[in-house]
Amino acid sequence: MARQADAANGERRTTIRDVAALAGVSPSAVTIALHDRPGVSAATRERILAAARELGWRPNLAASSLAGRRVHTVGLAIARPARLLGLEPFYMEFISGIESVLKRRSCSLLLRLVETDDEVEVHREWWQGGRVNGSILVDLRRDDPRIPALSGIGLPAVVVGHPSLAGPFTSVWTDDAAAVEEAVRYLAALGHRRVARVSGPAELGHSAIRTAAFTAVAGELGLDARTVVADFSADQGGRACRRLLLETPRPTAIVFDNDVMAVAALGVAAEFGLSVPADLSLLAWDDSQLCQLTRPTLSAMRHDVFSFGAQAAETLFAVIEGAPADSQLAHVPSLIPRGSTAPPAN
Amino acid sequence: MARQADAANGERRTTIRDVAALAGVSPSAVTIALHDRPGVSAATRERILAAARELGWRPNLAASSLAGRRVHTVGLAIARPARLLGLEPFYMEFISGIESVLKRRSCSLLLRLVETDDEVEVHREWWQGGRVNGSILVDLRRDDPRIPALSGIGLPAVVVGHPSLAGPFTSVWTDDAAAVEEAVRYLAALGHRRVARVSGPAELGHSAIRTAAFTAVAGELGLDARTVVADFSADQGGRACRRLLLETPRPTAIVFDNDVMAVAALGVAAEFGLSVPADLSLLAWDDSQLCQLTRPTLSAMRHDVFSFGAQAAETLFAVIEGAPADSQLAHVPSLIPRGSTAPPAN
Repeated sequence: MARQADAANGERRTTIRDVAALAGVSPSAVTIALHDRPGVSAATRERILAAARELGWRPNLAASSLAGRRVHTVGLAIARPARLLGLEPFYMEFISGIESVLKRRSCSLLLRLVETDDEVEVHREWWQGGRVNGSILVDLRRDDPRIPALSGIGLPAVVVGHPSLAGPFTSVWTDDAAAVEEAVRYLAALGHRRVARVSGPAELGHSAIRTAAFTAVAGELGLDARTVVADFSADQGGRACRRLLLETPRPTAIVFDNDVMAVAALGVAAEFGLSVPADLSLLAWDDSQLCQLTRPTLSAMRHDVFSFGAQAAETLFAVIEGAPADSQLAHVPSLIPRGSTAPPAN
Repeated sequence: MARQADAANGERRTTIRDVAALAGVSPSAVTIALHDRPGVSAATRERILAAARELGWRPNLAASSLAGRRVHTVGLAIARPARLLGLEPFYMEFISGIESVLKRRSCSLLLRLVETDDEVEVHREWWQGGRVNGSILVDLRRDDPRIPALSGIGLPAVVVGHPSLAGPFTSVWTDDAAAVEEAVRYLAALGHRRVARVSGPAELGHSAIRTAAFTAVAGELGLDARTVVADFSADQGGRACRRLLLETPRPTAIVFDNDVMAVAALGVAAEFGLSVPADLSLLAWDDSQLCQLTRPTLSAMRHDVFSFGAQAAETLFAVIEGAPADSQLAHVPSLIPRGSTAPPAN
């Protein structure tokens, strides 16, 4: 409440906007300069740092706005339907990982399900209302409007996604391109020549990265490859699989962007009288306990989602506390072969 | 922020403590009287309502403390290990259900994993710090210290659990006793004479209710019955099952207080070379998608956890907004027979 107390005393705190005005740049340029990231020239960076010094503004967004204020709340806004949140293991495990770090620090998570269009406004309201000390940004899209809008207001945040999507923010990411390459090379080594993939929403940055890698590796290996877009739900995953199996000739192996869609595909294969893996190989992503409970068990690209969530939270605390926080590669998902992948029958 | 503005203007708002002092009762007695619940005499209730009128205090805790303030945040503190939160479907479906209501109202959930001993303090801090408009209280224990402490400070709250555990608070509950009775009668009808149950933590109010019902119904039917306590995790559920299977004679049917423990028991049965359901019947609780993914599929006491969470949230909004909010029976879990229950082999 330091901010409100200051306001009540009539002492307006110096903000990022004052620094930007004095340096003659936009607030986002200040953020970029302070984080020493590409995007402003060396001369501009110097001018911005000089302006910050002149105004007595510590070149650390988080520390300045939180001076004297305990870190107590971290924000997370997710643009997914509520029903899906409970059914898809990814977010449950990710949130659990975040909570494992928050619990140790007696902090709370402010969680909100939003529509994509409301994301910026929710974070702005949380941050400017003093309700969070920082946020974790997820499901980054290409040219995501959150990046300029939220760096412009000085929100301390960590982006979960590839650094190319994160703008001036620190990011925590998994190497999706390398994982897709491993998956495709594995299926090719088993002898598959017609492979398909059921992706998450196309507008998500990591879907685009995986699609590009999938197409490139399949092309290099001379495979017939295609991607069908779905939304991570069992319903759409099953439909996408059905669509692929109606094609002639049909794919002999399908990669899924999560585990729930791969589980649904097991049911669709049974509908078509196809035996998994003899007639059709299925490869899941994320590897929650779901993959080990099906019969056959599902081969998967394993990804320690709990630790990923914990690492995002740890990194956010570093950002909030003003420690140098470089973007971090959490891990490369690795292939766990189980009962749903095998050489094609023909 | 109405509260802080008032404080800044030097006008102290009338609180529940003033009403209690004038009426010569405790703050919890005021809460009880206002909600028209058993616990104070008619004369005392009249005295309390008169005191409230005299002080110009609207006999509606929530509406008075929130006057002019938009409802924006609901609190939920859960005393569970972080890792378990991600693996146990119950809480994520429950939270999804809460979020489905919050999303419609553009509200956030303040979520915190706590130690049992910190629950009161967390809710007190949230409420008195103006960080939540009300809370949902879960995992009620017998003689839960949250009830007197939080009704004493006028926290608008909904208790998830049997009304007998809820004190002056409105509760949303499932009829665990009736469900246990259905489960035991079903197993007895299949011919089982030695039945066991693996429960959640004994200190939880609903564990105690289920244990009492289990013992009573088994006694009435002349079954040999016992309950072993675990903590809802796969690890302890598997161990409890192993302990039961080492007994002579061993039970021919086991009921579990959630689904994760029943899934673990499938693995333990395989260890012992026992075929499910021929040698051993297993009956799960909650019926998440896990129960349909195992082979054999798990028979379960189905419980629409998503709707249960949504109902708890709707009821909390009614409480916060001052609408009459009676305790509500959400539903009685009902038996879904699948592949893990059958008559005993001998």
